[in-house]
Order: sequence, then structure tokens, then C-alpha cells
Amino acid sequence: MTNIAILGFGVVGGGVADVIATNNETIARKTGEHINIKYILDLREFPDHPLGGRVVHDMNIILSDPEVTVVAEMMGGAHPAYDYTRAALEAGKHVVTSNKEVVATFGAELLRIAKEHHVRYLFEASVGGGIPVIRPMSSCLAANELSEVDGILNGTTNYILTQMIRAGKSFEEALAEAQEKGYAERNPAADVEGTDACRKICILAALAFGRLYAPSSVHTEGITAVTAQNVADAEALGGVIKLIGRAGRVHADDPDSDVFLLVSPHVIMHENPLSCVDDVFNAILVRGNAVGDVMFYGRGAGNLPTASAVVADIIDILTHKDAEIFVPDWESAASAPADHTALPYAFLCRVQTDAPYDEVTTAVRHIYPDAEFLTVADAFDGTAAFVTPTTTEADLRAALAPIGTLTSALRVMP
Amino acid sequence: MTNIAILGFGVVGGGVADVIATNNETIARKTGEHINIKYILDLREFPDHPLGGRVVHDMNIILSDPEVTVVAEMMGGAHPAYDYTRAALEAGKHVVTSNKEVVATFGAELLRIAKEHHVRYLFEASVGGGIPVIRPMSSCLAANELSEVDGILNGTTNYILTQMIRAGKSFEEALAEAQEKGYAERNPAADVEGTDACRKICILAALAFGRLYAPSSVHTEGITAVTAQNVADAEALGGVIKLIGRAGRVHADDPDSDVFLLVSPHVIMHENPLSCVDDVFNAILVRGNAVGDVMFYGRGAGNLPTASAVVADIIDILTHKDAEIFVPDWESAASAPADHTALPYAFLCRVQTDAPYDEVTTAVRHIYPDAEFLTVADAFDGTAAFVTPTTTEADLRAALAPIGTLTSALRVMP
Repeated sequence: MTNIAILGFGVVGGGVADVIATNNETIARKTGEHINIKYILDLREFPDHPLGGRVVHDMNIILSDPEVTVVAEMMGGAHPAYDYTRAALEAGKHVVTSNKEVVATFGAELLRIAKEHHVRYLFEASVGGGIPVIRPMSSCLAANELSEVDGILNGTTNYILTQMIRAGKSFEEALAEAQEKGYAERNPAADVEGTDACRKICILAALAFGRLYAPSSVHTEGITAVTAQNVADAEALGGVIKLIGRAGRVHADDPDSDVFLLVSPHVIMHENPLSCVDDVFNAILVRGNAVGDVMFYGRGAGNLPTASAVVADIIDILTHKDAEIFVPDWESAASAPADHTALPYAFLCRVQTDAPYDEVTTAVRHIYPDAEFLTVADAFDGTAAFVTPTTTEADLRAALAPIGTLTSALRVMP
Repeated sequence: MTNIAILGFGVVGGGVADVIATNNETIARKTGEHINIKYILDLREFPDHPLGGRVVHDMNIILSDPEVTVVAEMMGGAHPAYDYTRAALEAGKHVVTSNKEVVATFGAELLRIAKEHHVRYLFEASVGGGIPVIRPMSSCLAANELSEVDGILNGTTNYILTQMIRAGKSFEEALAEAQEKGYAERNPAADVEGTDACRKICILAALAFGRLYAPSSVHTEGITAVTAQNVADAEALGGVIKLIGRAGRVHADDPDSDVFLLVSPHVIMHENPLSCVDDVFNAILVRGNAVGDVMFYGRGAGNLPTASAVVADIIDILTHKDAEIFVPDWESAASAPADHTALPYAFLCRVQTDAPYDEVTTAVRHIYPDAEFLTVADAFDGTAAFVTPTTTEADLRAALAPIGTLTSALRVMP
């Protein structure tokens, strides 16, 4: 029997207890032992829960109990989650977590501490909920040099965008519906402004490239500025708008080249499998030099899917007890990622101008002879939509300034 | 340095050598050691290949060399691949393979032998080429009771069906094109008749349910009977036809209920993420009681993707050297899987009859009041298409016999 402690008995912590209760026999068949939740750390009491008697309010009880070998941190937030994680690792206990904020901010340091104390720090649940992605990236794709990771990493924003695409809703209408259905929180900032997706792409980039960038150093645009007009323009082009966390090598073929990271709405053409990922689902596409593109898909949130990943990490610890496990070496990035305004992209643009249609098309084609206009003359009402060939954001803004106001410039996923 | 031997220096064996040559430094960074291909077993000589000097023709050289710790079997076919695998395991060497025929036929026995000799038998490359699926299913989803696995498991047939759907080609035209492009072999039977997909679903079912069914015991339909009319009917219904390997518990909620397996063309509705998997791509959808549906997507074949999976298995062995690794316990199924004609399905039917349209619709609606007709009166030419509510194949055939000839009955994926 393995004794564990759960820190934080909210939605995910409760889900972990549920999954262990439901599947303990299956788990025991696979690992040879049962999991026992010896303690639950929470500020509250849970007198009506079957495990209510396991609740404690003092982390030291858990730290000083040698019977507890695994700590599952489900508290959320940076503190005290980081402090408790650190203390648990230093006390020689394995830690598993779903806390993307702690992993994205302190992951490099916590992995180093885990290594020093010969224990493991696992975080499969921090990205993509129950979707297996962290372990497949570090083990199944280990024979590859990875060049890029792209993800639809936030279910709330994907639900909102799907509603805007399918039902022609505005951002505000779709957000209100998502809040009604419980898919968005009353304060949706962390989701709709891209903060959540940013933490996750930082974790994925660290796995792929060995370097953890501070989320605050990553250019992050949410979906609050996406309009119904943008959605229609993307459809006219043969694509859909998705909020994408994107990380890669600046030169795909050169594993020593700089790393870029950004979070922003992208136009995904229908040929790209990410375009089929709708509603609250998440997907992560990984590109390796041997395997090509592989994609992992599933529910990116929810108590049971996330708990599924947490318990899988616990099982991994149980089945590799005496192994000298390879621990990834994450270096904390000393600088910001590569300048996102210098990345090669085609842009889906809208330009507002007082000039007549013919003048606008002529002026745009003077800069970009291959620009493809989506707005025809008859539909011109002072704004025109077109797609540029591959350029950079910096060049684009400079080139179009004399023509009119660039009201939107959506990156088209290469 | 770890010494390995490659058995069979064809497309995949050559790919393994290429991936090791290209990424050996990356691999060494992750594992702490380089991989050295000490021997290549093949009937042929490769005087112009840089590793030509490593070629041997006698398996005993490899078996008797204690420096060789890992054998990579890429020969294909049942014999002598099975015999060499068995001998290598008995000689205390780990074996990794891409050989689905050997895994699907002898996997239970070979895993038992591996366990007895404290070595590992790994086969990530046997299903889905480079797509990580075997290891994620056995580790990342270990906290789940699995109820179903559905897969697009054969790239050749998926390419042919995609051409039939997109370009309106007949099966024969699409097959000829696939052969021209090198996606289909000159003798395409193993692909188009479903044999290849059948072996793969047997392996996935064994992973999910612990029981290995003989491929010969599994109902297997290929795509040779799929017509352009079927494709059009599926489109009218809002779906696409895909060749699906499907395995699951007869009662999804009961982990002790019987297991079903079948391979056949299915209508996949557009809401199902498998409907977006086109061309030579493969995808595997797994359903767990905690995680819900997760899907793994990528190139299901090709020398480098497959080699990526083989080398990942080798890396797994290197990074878990002294671990007492959990080895799955596969029981060889003593009986056939559950009767596929008793599985609940809606069917997309075409019935040929001499009766007038009104009589046909009345007769069908007498049996299935909720049947949805796709053929309207004006388009009726003696055959009519409709969708039944959920029934079973056995009931369907009996019920429709008096009405006319059932020229096709495609399963609609629930």
C-alpha cells in the first residue's frame, strides 16, 4: 500500500479521490498495490465526505510522516503551492501536480531539487487535462529532435470561438453563454486574455527545447479582440480562428537556433488537423524530425480527466520505484524568446481607408503583388480584407501604414 | 555505449539506422550513452552502406555476443521473426519490434517469456507507425478502466477512401492512384481487405482489455466493396466512410463484460474527430472512465516515423535499465470475441426492390418508424437509401429480407 497526501480538496483534488476510489482495484492489478489517501490538506473541513476524517490543516503533519511517499498538489495558485511542493521534495517525497502556474514559473528549480533528493516531480495534468502529452513528448518522441509545438490549450476560449464560428455569435454573446454553461469563470481574464494558454506553452516549450521561459516574457494576445468579421474573413479564406500557443526553433532545421514562443489567435486552414478541434477540446501538435507531425487530442479540463492524469503520474511513480529515472534538465531562460514580430507569417488583414477600392487594391498589390483580396469591389464599404504572402509583423505594419488603418492582422498558421 | 543488433535491413531497419545516425547526440544527452549498431542481420549484403561491414547472416553470432543487449526486429512476417525474437529473449536480450504480425499472433507468449527472463519486449512501432499510442495507453491512461478503442489503423485504405470522398473516384481508380504514388503495394490485399488493421486492433484490444484475440477470430471487412454511391450516401447523412478497427466492452460500464472486436467500413459523423483524419494519416481514439475520449494522430507508416517509435523503445530500455518494469499480462483468448452481428448499430442501408417508392418507405417505416430516408421520391430508381435507428445486423437482415435486396448496410459509428 502506498500512502499519499492530497493538497487542496477542490474540484481536481476531489476528482483524484474519486478516480482512486473507483479504479483502485484496476490500479492494484497494474501496480501490485493499493493507493491510500492518508491525508487531505485543506483550510476547510469536509464532515460529510467519506474521507472527511483524513483532513488536516498543517502541512508539517504530512512532511514529518515517513509513511507518506507521494504528495499530490492540487491547490492552484503560486503560493503556498510552490512552498509546499519544495518542502515536500526536500523531505524526500515525490510530488505530482496539475498546477500549471507553479510548473511554468518554478519548474526548472523544482526539477533540480527533485533530482538532488532522488525523487520525482511529475506534472502530466498541468497541460491538456487528461490528454497524455507530457510523458509521450519526453519518452515516445525521445528519438526526435523537435522543431515545433502548437496547441489549442484552453477549453474556454475554444468553446467561445467555436460558438462564434458555428452560430455567428459575437465574442460577448459567446462568453456570456460559456459562463452560463460553467465553461467560463465569472472573471474570465486568465482564459480569454491568454494567460492560461501562455503558462501551458511555456511548459511544452521547456519539454521540447530544455529551456523554461518566464510566462511574462512571452507575447500573449487573447481572443477579446476577435470579431465576427474576423471569423467570416477566416471562413472566406478556408479556415477557422483558434487561440494557439506556439513554440518552435526559429530555424526549424537547426536545433541550436533561437526559440520563439507566442500566444495569439491564428487562422488555421481546414487541412490542418487543429482546425477540427472544437468546443472545450484541446489538442497539441508536435513536430519531430523523424516522426513528422503527431497530435494529441482530448478534454483539456474537468475534474475527472485532470485527475486521470494526476493518478497516472502516481502510478508511474509506483511502477518505477527503484529506478534511476531520467529527470529532464530545464534551464531557466536568461533572456526573452526570439522577437515575435520577426517571425515569418502570412497575415489576414483588414484595412480601413478613405480611398476608393481600386486605389486600395493597387496600393496593396504594389507592396504585395501576390496579395489575395477577399473583399470584392461590390462589398467594399471602406474596409477591405486581404491575405499577404509570408512577411513579418514588423514589415507589415510599416508597409501598410501609408495605405490606411490596419484594423486587424491575424496570423495564418504556416 | 549500448550495442544493438538490427534484424532485417529493409525500409524500417534502414530508417532505424538513419534516426540513430542523425539523432545520436540528442539521444546521448537524454540517456547518457550512445547507441552502437553492432550487427545487422540480413540475407543480403550492403557493400555501399556505411554500416555494410556490420552485416552478418547468422543469428547465432548475435545471440552469443553478450555485448548485444537490445535486438531490434524489423524483418516482418511471422517466421523466422518470431523464432529469432523468442531466441533473443531467452538469451536475455531486450527486443523491440515494428512487426505487428508477430505481436498480434504471439504477443502473449513473447511477453511471458520476456518476463521470465527479466527483459523487455516493446512494440510501440507495431501500431500507428510513429504515433505514440502503446506507451500512452499503458502508462498515461493507467488510472482508467478503458471501455473502447477505435482506430483508423491503415494509411493505404485511408488514402483510397479520402480520394473516393474528395475526388469522387471509384475504389479501383483510387487504388490505382495509391499504387502509382507508392502508398499501396502491387498486391494490396493485406491493406484493402483489412488484415493489417485487424492485427493492429488485436494489439490495441490486448492492451486495453488484457486479452489477445487471434486475428483470424475477428470479423474483418475491407474496403473493396465500398462504392461511390456509399460515399455519397454517407455525405448526405453528414459523415464520411472510414475503415475502422473497433474493440470494446459489450457493456461499456461493466469491465467484466465480454469484449467485441471487428474491422469494417463505418460511417463517421462530422462531429467525431476521427472524421477529420485524412490521406495516409492514422488516428486512435481511446475511451476511459475518467479521461473520456482521447485521440492520438499522426503518420501511421513510413520509414522514419516507424523508426522514431522503434528508437523510442530502445531509449526507454536505456533509461530504465535496472528497473523492475511492469510487464503487461496478456492472456491468449480461448474463444472468439463477442458476436459482432449482435452489436448495437444504426445502419446506412441501400435496398433494391421492384416495388414503387411509396410502398418501400411504408414497408421500411413499418419496421423502423424512425428510419430516415436519404433517397427522395424523385431520385428513386429502384434502390433507396435510409438510416435505421439502433438495431443489430442480425435483426436488420431478417427484417429487411421481405422488402428487397439489401445491397449495402454500413455501420454508423455510435
